[in-house]
Amino acid sequence: MVKYLKREKLLRKLAFEERSFDGFLVANEANLLYFLGFPGAVALLIPREAKSIIYVHNVNYEQAKAEGKGFEVKLIQRSEKFIEKISVDVNNFKIGKLALDTLSFENHQSLATKLRKGAKLEMQNKLIWQLRKTKDSRELELMRKAGELTSEGMKAAYETIRPGMKEYEVAAEIEYAMRKRGSYGTAFETIVASGARSAFPHGGCTDQTILKGSLVVVDIGATYQYYRSDMTRTIVAGRASAKQKKIYQVVRHAQQEAFRATVSNSKASEIDSSARRVIDDAGYGEYFVHGLGHGVGLEVHEQPTLNPESKDRLGAGNVVTIEPGIYIVGFGGIRIEDTVLVLKKTSERFTQGPYTLERTG
Amino acid sequence: MVKYLKREKLLRKLAFEERSFDGFLVANEANLLYFLGFPGAVALLIPREAKSIIYVHNVNYEQAKAEGKGFEVKLIQRSEKFIEKISVDVNNFKIGKLALDTLSFENHQSLATKLRKGAKLEMQNKLIWQLRKTKDSRELELMRKAGELTSEGMKAAYETIRPGMKEYEVAAEIEYAMRKRGSYGTAFETIVASGARSAFPHGGCTDQTILKGSLVVVDIGATYQYYRSDMTRTIVAGRASAKQKKIYQVVRHAQQEAFRATVSNSKASEIDSSARRVIDDAGYGEYFVHGLGHGVGLEVHEQPTLNPESKDRLGAGNVVTIEPGIYIVGFGGIRIEDTVLVLKKTSERFTQGPYTLERTG
Repeated sequence: MVKYLKREKLLRKLAFEERSFDGFLVANEANLLYFLGFPGAVALLIPREAKSIIYVHNVNYEQAKAEGKGFEVKLIQRSEKFIEKISVDVNNFKIGKLALDTLSFENHQSLATKLRKGAKLEMQNKLIWQLRKTKDSRELELMRKAGELTSEGMKAAYETIRPGMKEYEVAAEIEYAMRKRGSYGTAFETIVASGARSAFPHGGCTDQTILKGSLVVVDIGATYQYYRSDMTRTIVAGRASAKQKKIYQVVRHAQQEAFRATVSNSKASEIDSSARRVIDDAGYGEYFVHGLGHGVGLEVHEQPTLNPESKDRLGAGNVVTIEPGIYIVGFGGIRIEDTVLVLKKTSERFTQGPYTLERTG
Repeated sequence: MVKYLKREKLLRKLAFEERSFDGFLVANEANLLYFLGFPGAVALLIPREAKSIIYVHNVNYEQAKAEGKGFEVKLIQRSEKFIEKISVDVNNFKIGKLALDTLSFENHQSLATKLRKGAKLEMQNKLIWQLRKTKDSRELELMRKAGELTSEGMKAAYETIRPGMKEYEVAAEIEYAMRKRGSYGTAFETIVASGARSAFPHGGCTDQTILKGSLVVVDIGATYQYYRSDMTRTIVAGRASAKQKKIYQVVRHAQQEAFRATVSNSKASEIDSSARRVIDDAGYGEYFVHGLGHGVGLEVHEQPTLNPESKDRLGAGNVVTIEPGIYIVGFGGIRIEDTVLVLKKTSERFTQGPYTLERTG
């Protein structure tokens, strides 16, 4: 549990020492995982002057007591509203300025009316992102493992795809390859989008039969102990055409340029433009319809964000995707993506796989 | 698309004819799927006096245009805030009373300040639940299929589990069995919780080795075209002990009683108590630490809710889980769950599997 209490200590420093809050209420699911290490808590109240409290329903109470060492665990009865229970504690601890990570409109309203006079609520999720976007050594270990499992899934894709298979049959082999080696599940819904639907970046995975010569965008992720990975390759079922190969090389070149630009202290918008420039110069600029990438961790889309409008600057310990793509309705889509750890002077791919359009094995 | 427009028409009736709203803003992901049939939209604005508008980012724009027949599709540029763009349309349509399904505190605040004077916002997610909780014939077809796939997964579990296997290895076989027959993915994170962790209702699935004679709670769900299913069996790796068998029979009896009580017009709290009474009478009441069940559909936990405090009354076309369980720290947990369609005078199991503690095959 010590690693989790260390994270809480860092948040206390940011919120209570460097800023004037005297309490932090954490309610976002991924944030709770970050500070607790197990799922199922409803909320975590961090009072400046006391030990933190985990709020949990009966269904997860025994688990929280067993796994939440170092925290106080409070049971929310089925007849109780969690936000009212928490407001009582906030008042008891005399918290005057409570930071929040997230709350629905209704819960925010309910909490605001229950607090004693003069108490203030302030959304401060950015303080938690400040911590979460820089992965600690334990997180990097888990994410490296998630990357390895994802790479095994992609290997299965390259060995499996054949014309005549249904998209979900390919997904079955990919997910099985990851799972039987220890993946905890998929980081997001596996995409195996062939033919016309490959031109949709989020084309899904259906019962469509993969046709000979059609593009198949394979976008997959394993998870390991709640940490995620994200990887895409585009594979042709059969022989690739000259046009497919030409566009593939543009995307490949764009990814290489972006990978080279990905180091600590670089601007996210400039990394994006290093890839976008290659695609623009080749005449496909209008078909690169999304940002270059996003942070990955406990969530598959998190901070920092890599796109033309991003104000983020990368730091060592960030883990991001680099995923340029070209999507042409009527032709199809090609995307290449890896999950990458940002280092001081370079970067490291957590996902490894062939950079080829044609199947292997 | 017609089936989706029909759902929208029902919402228009509830909100605009039976109540005095003149616009509905849908932003919840599952609600968007319900009204659109495809993922990736940011929001749907239904103005009383005009065709509905789908708001979408560039990454999903082509897909929304291709799949969103009957709707207007508006692109949100990366530099735009979706809530500001929507507020302009709300004002242009002169919407005076806008119903909302869900919004974060920040977006609610932002929308409220942008609307013209006198315009009102009101959370009305319950109107959408009124529709979603009664499945139409198309939904029932998909959910029946999801149930069949889930049952195949459970069959694989019964045939696979052996002492010495790791929990995730069992999950791999289950998920593969569902996926290769057409499942679109898992309805939630597969639970294969053995030994001590079987006593936690949400015990997860880890790299723990399954020991001879230990209880293994297997809680799984396939999805089919976004519709989910939910099923649990508890299996002993090896021979079951007398105590395991005895407690199993209590849970089994409780599930049978609840299944019999599950018909249209019955009170959810009374169905819960029909199961809870059996467990109470056997002396295990304190170990049944959760409600009897919940609705299933596009989400794995939705309305109606079956627990002692529920005010819901079941109706024909509801699909719910019936899942009593007994969880004793130091002994382990036993849960039996099926996904069930509520009919006028009876109910129908969408999930089918053996009611036995010991492995088959």
